[in-house]
Amino acid sequence: MYFASDNTAPISPEILQAIAEAGHGHVGSYGADPFTEKLTAKAREIFETDLAIYPVGTGTAANALALATIVHPYGAVICADEAHIATDECGAPEFYMSGAKLITLPSPDGRIAPMQIETAMARAIDGGVHHVLPEAVSITQATEWGTIYTPAQIAEIGQASRRRGLHLHMDGARFANALVHTGATPAELTWKSGIDVLSFGATKNGAMAAEAVIFFNPALAAGFERRRKRAGQLWSKMRFLSAQLHAYLENDLWLRNARHANAMATTLADGLAALPGVRLMQKVQANELFVAMPDDMIDALHAEGAVFYRWIDMQGEPNPVVRLVTSFATTPEDVATFLTLARRLAPATQAAA
Amino acid sequence: MYFASDNTAPISPEILQAIAEAGHGHVGSYGADPFTEKLTAKAREIFETDLAIYPVGTGTAANALALATIVHPYGAVICADEAHIATDECGAPEFYMSGAKLITLPSPDGRIAPMQIETAMARAIDGGVHHVLPEAVSITQATEWGTIYTPAQIAEIGQASRRRGLHLHMDGARFANALVHTGATPAELTWKSGIDVLSFGATKNGAMAAEAVIFFNPALAAGFERRRKRAGQLWSKMRFLSAQLHAYLENDLWLRNARHANAMATTLADGLAALPGVRLMQKVQANELFVAMPDDMIDALHAEGAVFYRWIDMQGEPNPVVRLVTSFATTPEDVATFLTLARRLAPATQAAA
Amino acid sequence: MYFASDNTAPISPEILQAIAEAGHGHVGSYGADPFTEKLTAKAREIFETDLAIYPVGTGTAANALALATIVHPYGAVICADEAHIATDECGAPEFYMSGAKLITLPSPDGRIAPMQIETAMARAIDGGVHHVLPEAVSITQATEWGTIYTPAQIAEIGQASRRRGLHLHMDGARFANALVHTGATPAELTWKSGIDVLSFGATKNGAMAAEAVIFFNPALAAGFERRRKRAGQLWSKMRFLSAQLHAYLENDLWLRNARHANAMATTLADGLAALPGVRLMQKVQANELFVAMPDDMIDALHAEGAVFYRWIDMQGEPNPVVRLVTSFATTPEDVATFLTLARRLAPATQAAA
Amino acid sequence: MYFASDNTAPISPEILQAIAEAGHGHVGSYGADPFTEKLTAKAREIFETDLAIYPVGTGTAANALALATIVHPYGAVICADEAHIATDECGAPEFYMSGAKLITLPSPDGRIAPMQIETAMARAIDGGVHHVLPEAVSITQATEWGTIYTPAQIAEIGQASRRRGLHLHMDGARFANALVHTGATPAELTWKSGIDVLSFGATKNGAMAAEAVIFFNPALAAGFERRRKRAGQLWSKMRFLSAQLHAYLENDLWLRNARHANAMATTLADGLAALPGVRLMQKVQANELFVAMPDDMIDALHAEGAVFYRWIDMQGEPNPVVRLVTSFATTPEDVATFLTLARRLAPATQAAA
Repeated sequence: MYFASDNTAPISPEILQAIAEAGHGHVGSYGADPFTEKLTAKAREIFETDLAIYPVGTGTAANALALATIVHPYGAVICADEAHIATDECGAPEFYMSGAKLITLPSPDGRIAPMQIETAMARAIDGGVHHVLPEAVSITQATEWGTIYTPAQIAEIGQASRRRGLHLHMDGARFANALVHTGATPAELTWKSGIDVLSFGATKNGAMAAEAVIFFNPALAAGFERRRKRAGQLWSKMRFLSAQLHAYLENDLWLRNARHANAMATTLADGLAALPGVRLMQKVQANELFVAMPDDMIDALHAEGAVFYRWIDMQGEPNPVVRLVTSFATTPEDVATFLTLARRLAPATQAAA
Repeated sequence: MYFASDNTAPISPEILQAIAEAGHGHVGSYGADPFTEKLTAKAREIFETDLAIYPVGTGTAANALALATIVHPYGAVICADEAHIATDECGAPEFYMSGAKLITLPSPDGRIAPMQIETAMARAIDGGVHHVLPEAVSITQATEWGTIYTPAQIAEIGQASRRRGLHLHMDGARFANALVHTGATPAELTWKSGIDVLSFGATKNGAMAAEAVIFFNPALAAGFERRRKRAGQLWSKMRFLSAQLHAYLENDLWLRNARHANAMATTLADGLAALPGVRLMQKVQANELFVAMPDDMIDALHAEGAVFYRWIDMQGEPNPVVRLVTSFATTPEDVATFLTLARRLAPATQAAA
Repeated sequence: MYFASDNTAPISPEILQAIAEAGHGHVGSYGADPFTEKLTAKAREIFETDLAIYPVGTGTAANALALATIVHPYGAVICADEAHIATDECGAPEFYMSGAKLITLPSPDGRIAPMQIETAMARAIDGGVHHVLPEAVSITQATEWGTIYTPAQIAEIGQASRRRGLHLHMDGARFANALVHTGATPAELTWKSGIDVLSFGATKNGAMAAEAVIFFNPALAAGFERRRKRAGQLWSKMRFLSAQLHAYLENDLWLRNARHANAMATTLADGLAALPGVRLMQKVQANELFVAMPDDMIDALHAEGAVFYRWIDMQGEPNPVVRLVTSFATTPEDVATFLTLARRLAPATQAAA
Repeated sequence: MYFASDNTAPISPEILQAIAEAGHGHVGSYGADPFTEKLTAKAREIFETDLAIYPVGTGTAANALALATIVHPYGAVICADEAHIATDECGAPEFYMSGAKLITLPSPDGRIAPMQIETAMARAIDGGVHHVLPEAVSITQATEWGTIYTPAQIAEIGQASRRRGLHLHMDGARFANALVHTGATPAELTWKSGIDVLSFGATKNGAMAAEAVIFFNPALAAGFERRRKRAGQLWSKMRFLSAQLHAYLENDLWLRNARHANAMATTLADGLAALPGVRLMQKVQANELFVAMPDDMIDALHAEGAVFYRWIDMQGEPNPVVRLVTSFATTPEDVATFLTLARRLAPATQAAA
């Protein structure tokens, strides 16, 4: 019963197979290979536009490289206060952006609103040269709270951004989970709604280690290739990155994996929501659950072998909040076992909490 | 007949197998997994000391992270003028070191001498605060010219470094090729000769994408883990990096691969040295050859399907110099075919060159 | 009636005189001059300890250099959310610290409390390598809200910092104004209370352009001189920086100037507090006032030639808040004229506001 | 007899007077003052074009800010191997440029040639993304060897740069000394010959601490003001920087000072060239002399109180080379006394050397 993170999951068999198949013979290094060429064609087909796609090894690298390409060292990125780039990348964006800053906005459910962008921008501009200059907005899809931006919500943020001359970046570490939830097309969820640059995640959804930075306007990508190289993010045997990403997109593997993970999360959510003393803190729209439950219950679940994190204490909620994450590798049996346990270990009645 | 680079080679079957075996079940992410634990134990056994080992995805990342950990932003690294860190990493060391500089020394055969370190250091110190402060020396093993430092040569550099308070780094992108040439033990070629930090390469010698930074004095590694994270070099599914490196070290795979590559290079070298109009520019001690040959001959070899780079024009040598690189995947048949071709295409007599 | 900033004031005649006197003959450059030597002796006498003092040209440079010396690129500084380093230096600390981050804490009156440091630290450590590592705390004296830390308050912060291994920095852009308010000695307000590094400001209190970074433990200053040089902050004709700072400290000029500025602020505050519809938002302890007053009154004062900034809108306060700053150059006549005007322009009764 | 550096000189009385006159009353801070406005007008008049001028406190800051504005972090600057930016600024350019590199070219007399730029550029481009991308050329006027680029020489470099899309920067720490030597107009020596950005020095030629970055195409200056602020180079009391620079340009003070310094250097050079055992190593075109003389003679001159640096040992020259620098403050008496001494202390005959 592993619900600690989608990072603890292994690799999709289809992707392992693709690595094995790529491992024959000599091909050009650093991306001059047929696997990278096929990946680019595939990505253009799926996103229905003439994009530029650059594979890298980690999501942190994808985010930091994407932002450094569109923000000057004296600039800033507007994002949610709980954004992964702000809290969980040990300063990678600041490092890659040569010291540019993040301007963080309160976001109780992980999403930011167009009005907040406008306010932050006005304040920054008001400070003149004494303040850093916002040059980009970054949103996470699915958010750090497991919620989803609809295409319409992204479009509003896109408009607010363009009005102020800001580029719009999406951290899509769980892009597939968001996509299948909305039912939108990849194009609708990105460039058609105003996204300029996407960190396209695959690792959490079945790849071994494979992410990509996608520029929907290739002109924006000027200098990206040298940035990737000097960041030590250019694989010499690039075929093994590209092959993973190609297999991920081929035959809807990415969609199937995400649908499965989301379905497991929904089942978990439905089961837990019915229990006394247990409360879902956010809508479950992707593959993450944030659930308040009594301390005793958490301890007992851990003691029974369930693996998950005690996440945070939230104002107004007497119980601690835990995080449960599902993945392509989560089995219905794991979910069923967990729910059986939870039912047994939940407080007898709501009042008991 | 691929002699363009050891980066164009595929993956050793044993390493692919290890990836496949690591791809089952849930394990902790970011290095909290049994594969990483086993790798550390293996590396300590092989290097016969209590080292700290940190896997990363590329050699450029390994070098840049290693140097950034031991040099301040106002510092400098002394290295050969043709060092990979100086010429082929698009400024990665300067990026990771927050602007520290490289002080490059002439090195006709790829190696630097203790006396050169002393002179560079004296000049730097003489400049006071107007000059950057050398804090490390970096040598490449095997060098960019395919030559090798003996343990005794490293020890001399180690002493010159310690005398001046400089840390000693080794870029070991082709460490295994050097090791099997010298017949020394891994310990003798590193910490016993004064190496403080090693960029330990596996990718060019059979891995998919796997390098490691090894600190022989773990106290020197303070801060390394956060540096790796903020550089986007911390794999979430670390098991797949560690499993590669473990398989590389297991059952002498790394030594077998390197011996094969070196043997192929020697056969090539012996065959070419006998040809009229063809000249080896450097001793062939690892898996790289630098060979001067007539323009016509190069064109003809290329036309016959041999893949290799025209490398450089060298003073005092009328013909262009090409680079040929062998790897674990080079076959005796490839070498034989190439030599047959070369014999046919070489100028009729030396005088014809 | 200039109350816009203490930066709009000119230069103290004593300091101008010192510049003129320093402007004769040849002396060593870059600090090898008798003026710098005298300054160091004077500073040690005044702070009663064996400190290291480094003059620079601006307060932003002093702060950024001080912090970069005590924090690694993967580190962080804990400070108030309205700290000058966080809001008004266009990212200078992040630039100088090579991308390290600021962790900002709510501080309604400009001060932070020891408990907040503890909480921030606990959260950061909990994040492991995914979070930047706090290595320093920075407090501003006087604060951005014109309030003062007492020696006892600083000592508590000092203890909280030391307990967590954090260095303690003080942004003393208005150090003299704070000092004369508390009646403490310079030593009591700094190292005796746990301050490790002080940005010692003189520009706002009478100098032309002169600040200094003071390390109370000179061992902490390792590398500072090269950092200053590579930041372009090492004046070749250093005598002109040192002479300003020496004159500032000589004959209590700094204390006299600060006492005057504070007295002018107190008179302003007392006069304004008595007016209907006007409200002081913070205690006036140094030379800054934050005053809520009706929009019409602000416009009318501006129309009469008073120069000051509309500063901010504050929650729970219907009127805008303006900032008034006094300096060594503020005259009693300016204050009297302003108060006369304010009395005339204030709303007839409180109810009218 | 101070010939150690033009940095050991004091301040021109006219500039001190301008500081005193600027030190009255309140004016806007950070450049919103009449002194800065007047400076801009004056600079446009003198350079006969619509330029943007930004005062800063040091020459290192001017160079580093200028280069950071025109070069990306993954870029490079082509310059002479002895350029001040390469050797004497403790890595300031690399720091400000966020890690971009300097590509240094051999320059026996301090100047670089158009062909060298072409070769360096070709090599860099040939390396693809593995090499940093040259984006600017920087030349020093007068050079570090005291020599001068003529307008025609600059124009050739300008054309070579433009052909390759490179911006052209001039480090004009001793711009006035070069200008009066050539007899060209300021416009001819800069933008009319292809200079895009000038570090305009005044400190070495009479100012207290005042340099400026001048963009001849203001569009190139995008972002400069925030870069200056985040570098801690924006003076709050900017009037004192601008007043210095204005006084420097007013009434030809800068030209008079430079003419005097150059004349003193010429007299020294003529006197020394006539002595046996003494050899001028470079043409004396500005205010610096590089003179080989016997060790004994150097020691004896030092013993008699002459202040100057033993500079370097040069290949092919048996004696050490010393550097002598004159300035606006060098007196004919100092020069005469030095020459009398030198005549007395020179070896009896050339053969004795």
